[in-house]
Amino acid sequence: MRRPGFSRRMFTTGAAAAALAPAGLAATAVGATAGRASGEPRTSEVKTITLYAEEVGDGQAGYGLEPGQATIPGPLLEMYEGDSYEIELVNNMDVDVSLHVHGVDYTIENDGTAHTDSTVAPGESRVYTWTTHAPGVREDGSVIAGSAGYWNYHDHIVGTPHGTGGLQRGLYGGLIVRREGDLVPDKTFVVVFNDMTTNNLQDGPDFEAVVGERVEFLSITHGEYYHTFHLHGHRWADNRTGLLADENDPSRVIDNKICGPGESFGFQVIAGEHVGPGHWMYHCHVQSHSDMGMAGMLIVADEDGNAPGDPGHHAEPSGDAPRSEEDAHAHH
Amino acid sequence: MRRPGFSRRMFTTGAAAAALAPAGLAATAVGATAGRASGEPRTSEVKTITLYAEEVGDGQAGYGLEPGQATIPGPLLEMYEGDSYEIELVNNMDVDVSLHVHGVDYTIENDGTAHTDSTVAPGESRVYTWTTHAPGVREDGSVIAGSAGYWNYHDHIVGTPHGTGGLQRGLYGGLIVRREGDLVPDKTFVVVFNDMTTNNLQDGPDFEAVVGERVEFLSITHGEYYHTFHLHGHRWADNRTGLLADENDPSRVIDNKICGPGESFGFQVIAGEHVGPGHWMYHCHVQSHSDMGMAGMLIVADEDGNAPGDPGHHAEPSGDAPRSEEDAHAHH
Amino acid sequence: MRRPGFSRRMFTTGAAAAALAPAGLAATAVGATAGRASGEPRTSEVKTITLYAEEVGDGQAGYGLEPGQATIPGPLLEMYEGDSYEIELVNNMDVDVSLHVHGVDYTIENDGTAHTDSTVAPGESRVYTWTTHAPGVREDGSVIAGSAGYWNYHDHIVGTPHGTGGLQRGLYGGLIVRREGDLVPDKTFVVVFNDMTTNNLQDGPDFEAVVGERVEFLSITHGEYYHTFHLHGHRWADNRTGLLADENDPSRVIDNKICGPGESFGFQVIAGEHVGPGHWMYHCHVQSHSDMGMAGMLIVADEDGNAPGDPGHHAEPSGDAPRSEEDAHAHH
Repeated sequence: MRRPGFSRRMFTTGAAAAALAPAGLAATAVGATAGRASGEPRTSEVKTITLYAEEVGDGQAGYGLEPGQATIPGPLLEMYEGDSYEIELVNNMDVDVSLHVHGVDYTIENDGTAHTDSTVAPGESRVYTWTTHAPGVREDGSVIAGSAGYWNYHDHIVGTPHGTGGLQRGLYGGLIVRREGDLVPDKTFVVVFNDMTTNNLQDGPDFEAVVGERVEFLSITHGEYYHTFHLHGHRWADNRTGLLADENDPSRVIDNKICGPGESFGFQVIAGEHVGPGHWMYHCHVQSHSDMGMAGMLIVADEDGNAPGDPGHHAEPSGDAPRSEEDAHAHH
Repeated sequence: MRRPGFSRRMFTTGAAAAALAPAGLAATAVGATAGRASGEPRTSEVKTITLYAEEVGDGQAGYGLEPGQATIPGPLLEMYEGDSYEIELVNNMDVDVSLHVHGVDYTIENDGTAHTDSTVAPGESRVYTWTTHAPGVREDGSVIAGSAGYWNYHDHIVGTPHGTGGLQRGLYGGLIVRREGDLVPDKTFVVVFNDMTTNNLQDGPDFEAVVGERVEFLSITHGEYYHTFHLHGHRWADNRTGLLADENDPSRVIDNKICGPGESFGFQVIAGEHVGPGHWMYHCHVQSHSDMGMAGMLIVADEDGNAPGDPGHHAEPSGDAPRSEEDAHAHH
Repeated sequence: MRRPGFSRRMFTTGAAAAALAPAGLAATAVGATAGRASGEPRTSEVKTITLYAEEVGDGQAGYGLEPGQATIPGPLLEMYEGDSYEIELVNNMDVDVSLHVHGVDYTIENDGTAHTDSTVAPGESRVYTWTTHAPGVREDGSVIAGSAGYWNYHDHIVGTPHGTGGLQRGLYGGLIVRREGDLVPDKTFVVVFNDMTTNNLQDGPDFEAVVGERVEFLSITHGEYYHTFHLHGHRWADNRTGLLADENDPSRVIDNKICGPGESFGFQVIAGEHVGPGHWMYHCHVQSHSDMGMAGMLIVADEDGNAPGDPGHHAEPSGDAPRSEEDAHAHH
């Protein structure tokens, strides 16, 4: 269940797993959109998968693409504007669960809430359909925003009608909707600040990359507290893609962003660009939160596999441990 | 006093009420700017109204356009860039009150604060003047931002010099400044997350619309806590208007936004666009906040008046109530 | 140690102080970039300064450009994209300290963290190198965001590996990276909401300006709490510069912004534009925070030195003090 992130390779494995879904559901490859868009226009896809909601031990729960394979966060789902997902949610837990999604289109019977009777009883299943659309223009000239975005999905019924128990236990995941022409990353890492955990872990997971790789982060916040996502040595644009659209894009460039529960955003960086390899920390910048473990590493290695900065020193505050003069007095 | 929102119709009523203001004040129609801007340039208006600050029971207080008609939030005020408001505030309470506004222009004697002697004693009145301006360019080439925005007004003196008591009791309201050419909505709903209430109500009010109507939300946060405003099935651009300016506008499209006290933002959606009719929930996504009642419905009906999703199920968390198999196992 | 802000004049003094840095370090004028960019392209500068970390009494600590001159916040550092800073940090405290910076480029050995061995033991020193870059375009057509921004620097080791103790004590400061062509302000004021203080002061400092001056604010948040920065009578664009790039810039114009720890943003206003002189309050709009002192004044004087609004009235909530009828009933 402990998985630090999603590499493109791991994602493809997930797609293969989806192909094992029950008969009657035409499973398409989840990761099929991962390649760069070619010159000709994409054909919209209907992606059909099964998600299993299940206990994963220690009172936690997750969504998985196969029985017994639930993860926290759940599988990263990706689509392009115009694509649809038909997701059969199989409830292998002993309480009602559901699937509520942010950002994309769905009719009210796919809301995943109690008041719409769109939750799933233990031992039952239900298909949730999500659709998406490209930008357009209305008759009155106003712009229809496309579905592209860094979104998230989660339970909306366990514990309370707002899914507070489901979120606490781990029933959440990331959803990325891309626009045709959007740059596709080499790797995507999902970081969920959920109450006082990162991906329901006491200490944040580490992520690995090589200098020059295009690395994507999907940052999601859930639960009770606000958090600020900070990444050392890298920064991004505070807009839809996290990349400046052009040199005149007025978006603020940031390396630290406040988010509250239910929010998600994403961005891409070139690992080590302008700064080189290293153990680059990411953390919540609320001081007590990082001190209590809401921190991890983006380990960026050079071509030889070296990533300077020894995380063994991670836990030593000033004055608590004597340090050699050579270490501290390192002019360069 | 319990009013779920402001329809264009209700607003016109408010305007008529303003016409009953005391002699000596030339009351112009508050809602006169509600129609779409015609081809010829608008003429700036000076809007003259009276606001009465008064108790509304249960220790709460509000602003109203007539004595005995105070609401929480107070009247939604609208203007176009270039317009002015001359607001006589009549204090029918037993403590000093004031009127402080965000976003628009006012000289220091219209600040509504103790240190500027711009508050109003019990039984007294005072005129506050707000002006606005269109965008422009300074001599050095820098852009003068226009006054257009989703703003708010509130007391700044009851209880503390920052009006903490006045805000708690309900002395706040919304202000929308439009730019010529901005799309005018069919309906505007004001949602104020004020401490642990919505518009000083334990449970958030419901709002009604019909599929295809252009619905505007003005979301305001006040008090002590941060909140995140989330709307099911609809989303908006995180910019000045909540609408993408054009297809190249890089603004993030969101359906969930963190706000802290004093902040306000707005957006327009086409009710049910891409998703159809339904009981679409809005709520603070901080889990304990929604669980404690910071939630309501945007009820979007079809042409026949139907809005699927029965709010009677609203309060049933998973496992607390046995549910029929037919309800849960609803493949489609 | 108590310094209300940084005027251009004060900043030049800081630059002169830097010129007194130890031999062997070529001290360039810190404020050299303060003049408006001329017609010809700038030549990148390498700025070499020394920062001294030291106690300043009452358990607080700060960074200063000379021994015994530490301030809270530390010196405001400014650079243009393309410039570098070589900062020798001299540790005159009795615990390890460090220097961690947001937004700009630095290799991992300049991270200022324990796990990278880039902190400084008592009595020792270490050079931190920060570099910056202008915007560019990658081979794949994506935009490289430039380093320009309203950033901040701080200790990352005192008390905890995240510098929680260092931040509490005052080891932080502002960094502004400008883009060639950016408008240069007449004055810059740095406001750090740090836990429940403003610049580690119980009450926020006052700042002075004259009507028509171009005033810049750098707002930084640190510590444990979120805050909202609100300024009376003035507003700004929620983008990189705080100024609209052009009249089509879709950025929201605001006068109140939520920030969490680690975040910083900045903007420029023309003092008194559209509103005239006065004691214009700035404050955190979280009600208990402003009530407990997180507030100060932007005192904007007219040409004769008058700034209406008497701060002596600042602390009088409604009803606590009897007020004359003439004061309250001031129609105009």
